[in-house]
Amino acid sequence: MATPKNKGAANRKVWQVSAGGLHPLVEAYTVGEDHLFDQELLPYDIEASMAHAEMLASMGILSEEELRRAKEGLLRIFEMWENGDFLISQEQEDGHTAIEQFLTDEYGEIGKKIHTGRSRNDQSLVMIRLFMRANLRYVRELTAELGSRLEERTTETQSVPMPGYTHMQKAMPASVGMWLGSYREAFSDIGLLLAATEKVIDQNPLGSASGFGIGNFPLQRDLTTRALKFKRTQENPMYCGFSRGYFENLVLQALSQVMIVCGRFANDMLLFTTAEFNFLSLPANFTTGSSIMPQKRNYDVFEIMRGNAKVFHSYQAQVQEIVSALGSGYQRDLQLTKRPLVEGVALCTETLVLMADIIPALQVQKDVLKRAMTKDLFVTNEVYDLVKKGKSFRDAYVEVKKKLGKR
Amino acid sequence: MATPKNKGAANRKVWQVSAGGLHPLVEAYTVGEDHLFDQELLPYDIEASMAHAEMLASMGILSEEELRRAKEGLLRIFEMWENGDFLISQEQEDGHTAIEQFLTDEYGEIGKKIHTGRSRNDQSLVMIRLFMRANLRYVRELTAELGSRLEERTTETQSVPMPGYTHMQKAMPASVGMWLGSYREAFSDIGLLLAATEKVIDQNPLGSASGFGIGNFPLQRDLTTRALKFKRTQENPMYCGFSRGYFENLVLQALSQVMIVCGRFANDMLLFTTAEFNFLSLPANFTTGSSIMPQKRNYDVFEIMRGNAKVFHSYQAQVQEIVSALGSGYQRDLQLTKRPLVEGVALCTETLVLMADIIPALQVQKDVLKRAMTKDLFVTNEVYDLVKKGKSFRDAYVEVKKKLGKR
Amino acid sequence: MATPKNKGAANRKVWQVSAGGLHPLVEAYTVGEDHLFDQELLPYDIEASMAHAEMLASMGILSEEELRRAKEGLLRIFEMWENGDFLISQEQEDGHTAIEQFLTDEYGEIGKKIHTGRSRNDQSLVMIRLFMRANLRYVRELTAELGSRLEERTTETQSVPMPGYTHMQKAMPASVGMWLGSYREAFSDIGLLLAATEKVIDQNPLGSASGFGIGNFPLQRDLTTRALKFKRTQENPMYCGFSRGYFENLVLQALSQVMIVCGRFANDMLLFTTAEFNFLSLPANFTTGSSIMPQKRNYDVFEIMRGNAKVFHSYQAQVQEIVSALGSGYQRDLQLTKRPLVEGVALCTETLVLMADIIPALQVQKDVLKRAMTKDLFVTNEVYDLVKKGKSFRDAYVEVKKKLGKR
Amino acid sequence: MATPKNKGAANRKVWQVSAGGLHPLVEAYTVGEDHLFDQELLPYDIEASMAHAEMLASMGILSEEELRRAKEGLLRIFEMWENGDFLISQEQEDGHTAIEQFLTDEYGEIGKKIHTGRSRNDQSLVMIRLFMRANLRYVRELTAELGSRLEERTTETQSVPMPGYTHMQKAMPASVGMWLGSYREAFSDIGLLLAATEKVIDQNPLGSASGFGIGNFPLQRDLTTRALKFKRTQENPMYCGFSRGYFENLVLQALSQVMIVCGRFANDMLLFTTAEFNFLSLPANFTTGSSIMPQKRNYDVFEIMRGNAKVFHSYQAQVQEIVSALGSGYQRDLQLTKRPLVEGVALCTETLVLMADIIPALQVQKDVLKRAMTKDLFVTNEVYDLVKKGKSFRDAYVEVKKKLGKR
Repeated sequence: MATPKNKGAANRKVWQVSAGGLHPLVEAYTVGEDHLFDQELLPYDIEASMAHAEMLASMGILSEEELRRAKEGLLRIFEMWENGDFLISQEQEDGHTAIEQFLTDEYGEIGKKIHTGRSRNDQSLVMIRLFMRANLRYVRELTAELGSRLEERTTETQSVPMPGYTHMQKAMPASVGMWLGSYREAFSDIGLLLAATEKVIDQNPLGSASGFGIGNFPLQRDLTTRALKFKRTQENPMYCGFSRGYFENLVLQALSQVMIVCGRFANDMLLFTTAEFNFLSLPANFTTGSSIMPQKRNYDVFEIMRGNAKVFHSYQAQVQEIVSALGSGYQRDLQLTKRPLVEGVALCTETLVLMADIIPALQVQKDVLKRAMTKDLFVTNEVYDLVKKGKSFRDAYVEVKKKLGKR
Repeated sequence: MATPKNKGAANRKVWQVSAGGLHPLVEAYTVGEDHLFDQELLPYDIEASMAHAEMLASMGILSEEELRRAKEGLLRIFEMWENGDFLISQEQEDGHTAIEQFLTDEYGEIGKKIHTGRSRNDQSLVMIRLFMRANLRYVRELTAELGSRLEERTTETQSVPMPGYTHMQKAMPASVGMWLGSYREAFSDIGLLLAATEKVIDQNPLGSASGFGIGNFPLQRDLTTRALKFKRTQENPMYCGFSRGYFENLVLQALSQVMIVCGRFANDMLLFTTAEFNFLSLPANFTTGSSIMPQKRNYDVFEIMRGNAKVFHSYQAQVQEIVSALGSGYQRDLQLTKRPLVEGVALCTETLVLMADIIPALQVQKDVLKRAMTKDLFVTNEVYDLVKKGKSFRDAYVEVKKKLGKR
Repeated sequence: MATPKNKGAANRKVWQVSAGGLHPLVEAYTVGEDHLFDQELLPYDIEASMAHAEMLASMGILSEEELRRAKEGLLRIFEMWENGDFLISQEQEDGHTAIEQFLTDEYGEIGKKIHTGRSRNDQSLVMIRLFMRANLRYVRELTAELGSRLEERTTETQSVPMPGYTHMQKAMPASVGMWLGSYREAFSDIGLLLAATEKVIDQNPLGSASGFGIGNFPLQRDLTTRALKFKRTQENPMYCGFSRGYFENLVLQALSQVMIVCGRFANDMLLFTTAEFNFLSLPANFTTGSSIMPQKRNYDVFEIMRGNAKVFHSYQAQVQEIVSALGSGYQRDLQLTKRPLVEGVALCTETLVLMADIIPALQVQKDVLKRAMTKDLFVTNEVYDLVKKGKSFRDAYVEVKKKLGKR
Repeated sequence: MATPKNKGAANRKVWQVSAGGLHPLVEAYTVGEDHLFDQELLPYDIEASMAHAEMLASMGILSEEELRRAKEGLLRIFEMWENGDFLISQEQEDGHTAIEQFLTDEYGEIGKKIHTGRSRNDQSLVMIRLFMRANLRYVRELTAELGSRLEERTTETQSVPMPGYTHMQKAMPASVGMWLGSYREAFSDIGLLLAATEKVIDQNPLGSASGFGIGNFPLQRDLTTRALKFKRTQENPMYCGFSRGYFENLVLQALSQVMIVCGRFANDMLLFTTAEFNFLSLPANFTTGSSIMPQKRNYDVFEIMRGNAKVFHSYQAQVQEIVSALGSGYQRDLQLTKRPLVEGVALCTETLVLMADIIPALQVQKDVLKRAMTKDLFVTNEVYDLVKKGKSFRDAYVEVKKKLGKR
């Protein structure tokens, strides 16, 4: 999978203990597909490495010229990555090693210096932190966009009547607008949560090394904090380590609201698009057919959405269970939190993008809805007509109930 | 279980459909122990009922005199509750019915009017909302108190050395203060999350009736919003209904951080209190013995704490799974979210109260820790001594590694 | 809560380390409500204690007369328990202590000897094992009974047509009998699983002491194995300890099938009892009303059943998470697996008992169902009519599809 | 991704409703990576298609010559698949379509007939069923092999002493053999469970079509049952459909025992390989190093194993949550159960293969263990020495306890 550029780098993990090399089953089991997720996260590693190089220069570890060349090298990696030409091999195990090896191969001494004052632990931490911050922002934008599309349809359908259901039975008069508006409000509150979560995690873990700092090599951590535009430095190095996986769980919990709400919307849609209800529909290009029943129009998209809410939940639960089993200090289990994070973020954003396309396409069956507004929905109104005439609620209620019993 | 005062109230659920009464198995299955949780939540129901009565008075449904007597009645209920004399019977099913029946038995017409403009749905919603808001604040206070106790011990133990572990192996020099400080920072971030969650849920659902408002009976919802000191009114009635269970999940997710962090602290303690590590201990009255091995001192308290983190997770997952299965509109499954909420809140606060007692009692085995600061912990320091002399990190690393290989 | 008989026993835990007594918060936190669950499990503790006493007699630890009196004492405890007069106090912490104290108070030396060769660990293990075995059998009986009631209704409704749905849309002709029959088959397979699970756990852990046997005091474990009618002795004492919680998880996994299937049945019922579908109904005494909407008939029983499937899942997941966090050797977290087991078993049996009452009461709306058998359900039949005339399936399919397109 | 052979097949899904084609976002969202998992499952689809073709021949739908050529075609697909040359394209969506298209392209009419009497639903069902049956057997073999390797080490280490721990504290004398033997017994019981699960799922769903059979086209289902060596035919077509996902959950629950036990073994290993305990070790090629701490030997393999137990749990929970949300009748959510099944099976088998390599490599630190057998472990023995001299257990216990208090 390695490209010509960084192929030679393969199998040069400097930190390997055993001379004979790692047992191949152990290697496969521990490394797994982690490098594929690093592949996706690489730009954030590069961004953090830039800031780190600047700090090293400010500390005199890199000369100004070395800094310039280090940045040039990192930029080259980014461009190769964008073109799909920078590939992390399974032997390199992770993006951190791949970056250092490229810089060493191409820029000699600079590559050997880039890892000064950091460990793969804080390098991972900062890379993932930047990824999470960027995606919390992206999801916030998506929910805002979705919210405004819902807002539009809410206004438009405010006066289209719709039965309100409780216990799956007709209960009270409502409207399509009231129904859509409830989702608009839900996404608006989600926006608040996403912002709050971003605020919590927006702290710089770079410089915590392997989770205990480096006693005889103090770093200027505020420099990377500023360069990476973090709100604050995550001071305690053990808390930096502690937050690996733990912050991922926070982010997935926040994103889980998106999936829960979309899943519940899907539940509504699957009921309201049955032939028996038939309140709503989608254009044909949103629906699928059946191999044996040519006449069917199926809303698979909502079935998958509903199922994906559960898939997402399992990503979040996975991270939480892994993290909860541990105490302080890095343990390799934490590597396994990368995949559910990356896949969870992708699932969440995909779902939102799709939702933003669905809402404007929603077709409201006004005639069906009008016919569905049967008399039984207005019983409570009868009670309140009596209340307005001065009856106590409970007496009015009993009177209407008696009357209905005789009907 | 009913007291003399409200005993006569039993079995008078006005909303029962079947003349012959509900099938006893169905009743037992659907009501379950819900009334026991309402028993705990009653003060919040009373508080909201006060505000509701005021709104009814302002709308002219209750006269000033009726309002005065309604308040008096609600206060009497509260006092009886405080003395353990107001008990909700299983036949009444919930606190809402118990309150109305008491007011009707004791104050006649007032009791029959109190339910005007509300449903048991929004009455539950607002009761639980107030319970959650109060407890988010309480947990925030507890974490702050715990944080300050951690802070004290952090300062005191800042210079007590402690090996830093990664992969369960000694890695780098750290200190007891660094370790305790990491937990202090964790609880400080949790404070931020709790505040953000409170901000999201601090909206008034009272007046949404059964989740669709009441078309021909507009309420002055801003009055109860102000009376109950909510930040805002939860405008859309379907979103009010939607948030039942959904907000409970938000709150439990926020509280779950407390349990995760305490569980991880317990993991640390269970390792560090083994005879083999012996870094830390607790006074004898915090530990338990064994029926067959009289010599043992066991840290059961941390085992239970670790286990409780999982128990708590199951409460949160329960609520999330129940909520995720539904669409819009009240469904009875939501009643089942009350128990995990109430029990989860209790477990979380209990754990924090205990933690606040444990931290000051923590005994640090300084001599053992000093002996544990073996040479291998300082290998990285050797690398950085070379770096400070001008070697590139990677060359320094390889040189130290080679030297170690020869040792 | 203690009765006159065993009140004096309170607060005499012989195994307490600290002279000053356990910190009250620690005691409350670690003991919790565990004694309430032991209260329920007591008969199984008595049963196992009988067998243990017999073994002690056969080993010469108890004389024949002592054995007779020990049995008499255990029987008295059982009779008191049956009358609600034997109550385990929170101070005693568990049933094991309560039994020993009663025997010591009433029978002197015999009580002091009864714990010979066992620990509270294996005493718990065997008590819970017997509880699980008994309940696996009971659930098997209940599923068999439910199965035969389903069988009856299946036969009766075999020819009542019902649309078959896929993707929530009408797909193919089916029948009420086919639908009910699918549940009958599900419960029949569950019977197989329950039997298999029983077979796995039907092994005697008594005699494993605290999980390592007792080196200088070999027991005749086969005697208790026979007396308690276990299929085999669980030989390795560490595996006995290992299976605490682990076997509970096996049992809950098996029972979870019951809850999943009932939950899915509830899902079907909630759809088919909507006014829009109206295929099925239940008599009025199975349904509930609404405080604000007197006309409604709600199927709360299925909403609670659907929700309970999730509640049950959380019990099982709780046990699994607790157990998965541990290695070998008893740890107190395992105590926390008792509650989800006892509550899970109760929830499962309650649900089955209710289901067995629901099935015969099910009302089939034949006319509605007949009207629902619309032409589109028979499109596939058209395809196969062509196939029978010699067309290839795919050509027939395309031909019918084209024809439909023109309709 | 399509090969020359079946490239032309792309984008010819005969069951697509909308002329304009499916919305690309909807297609990406609903199809996802499902075809990649079908790629893995293809051999089982081919196997079932063979049996299906035979049944069609026996029914006269295929002539003997057509059957011969159909088998030849299916065999060609298998050989191409083995060489990596038969690739399912995303446009084809699944292996079922890919197979039919290949047969149609290469064998004309035969391809058009192969789908007679089946639907993609029962085709999926039978393919997955065969996959599960094969893997339950494979896992059973692996656990048996692992069991016999554990047996060997158990025998060898039976008399190597090891402290038994409860509550993380030394409790009683045990041995390495007793410890290893407990895992051997665990895997032996797992074997029973796997066999029982296989027995439950070993029933033929082929012929249930889309979950309701085909009323006017009765199949000879017993023929495929025999050809595919199923124990029995899964008679009720709706139960066939019901078991999609539901049986996957059964299988994953059974396999989860493997992961729980391996995860707990990993917990033990991670404690016993700390420098502080140092009871056990693995050769250098099983361990990994650290980028910043050259001296470390880390047991990452057990950290990943412990984490993977949680990852596996999330696969199982995912399937269970998806399935529990549904009623009867195929819904697309069920497609999402394929990935966690395939990945879960792979994770479980990988873990077992690795374990089978670890057990023989395990190094026992006999000297360390001997030194660890301190006096406190034998306190219970002292109690029983007194018991053997005629003291009652409780008196002996108190006496030893008092003596210890004075030490």
